[in-house]
Amino acid sequence: MKYLHTMVRVTDIEASLRFYRDALGLEVLSRRDNEAGQFTLVFLAAPGDRTAQVELTYNWPKNGAAETYTGGRNFGHLAYAVDDIYATCQRLMDHGVVISRPPRDGRMAFVRSPDQVSVELLQAGQALAPAEPWVSMPNVGAW
Amino acid sequence: MKYLHTMVRVTDIEASLRFYRDALGLEVLSRRDNEAGQFTLVFLAAPGDRTAQVELTYNWPKNGAAETYTGGRNFGHLAYAVDDIYATCQRLMDHGVVISRPPRDGRMAFVRSPDQVSVELLQAGQALAPAEPWVSMPNVGAW
Repeated sequence: MKYLHTMVRVTDIEASLRFYRDALGLEVLSRRDNEAGQFTLVFLAAPGDRTAQVELTYNWPKNGAAETYTGGRNFGHLAYAVDDIYATCQRLMDHGVVISRPPRDGRMAFVRSPDQVSVELLQAGQALAPAEPWVSMPNVGAW
Repeated sequence: MKYLHTMVRVTDIEASLRFYRDALGLEVLSRRDNEAGQFTLVFLAAPGDRTAQVELTYNWPKNGAAETYTGGRNFGHLAYAVDDIYATCQRLMDHGVVISRPPRDGRMAFVRSPDQVSVELLQAGQALAPAEPWVSMPNVGAW
């Protein structure tokens, strides 16, 4: 038995790729645009851990209207270990992502995808020394 | 960078362990009952893939009232490959789990956790030969 992936639905595939690929740093392993089914599937994974994937499901707009998705409390978050949590958070900010829970402790941060999927980032190994601007950065919203 | 886990919230930790551990077949790697925080965290993983985990968060009832969680469409499902999809589905049924999408094709099935988290099961390698009772089994609800 083996974990394969966690699937999330996305309302805007390009915005989602900017978040999961460009800002978070996952790699796109495959993309399938299914004309007949009117959907796109994108599989991504951490560069160092390709076997555990996240699947983005993008249902194409019908009659020009994109689907919209609400969140639910039964799902919590996706969690990734990162080599440098400050560098990861800076890259997310450079791409316009709000750091919901900044890594004030050099160890843990939370952000949200464009569809409000919560993503936890954990510093691999020892926590980094607390440092600005993170130490003074307040929480924003929920995560 | 490395995927660590997907966290889901559960309203009944024992019912959730019956589903994720006994019926689905994941192994409990750790359990922490936090009296001060009034919550329990359980980490589980597939026996063959311990590094990719699912985290159950159980917030203890306050004043006797358990929290309840709704689902949202932004989260899709957790997916696992299994060695024998028929044996897995039979074990799930033996534990009272409804097979939302039976493996009529010998390849794919969907079930839901007690908190309505959708779980996809995929036959590892080649699909099994279609067989009863699965071939004649109808879909039940959504997944």
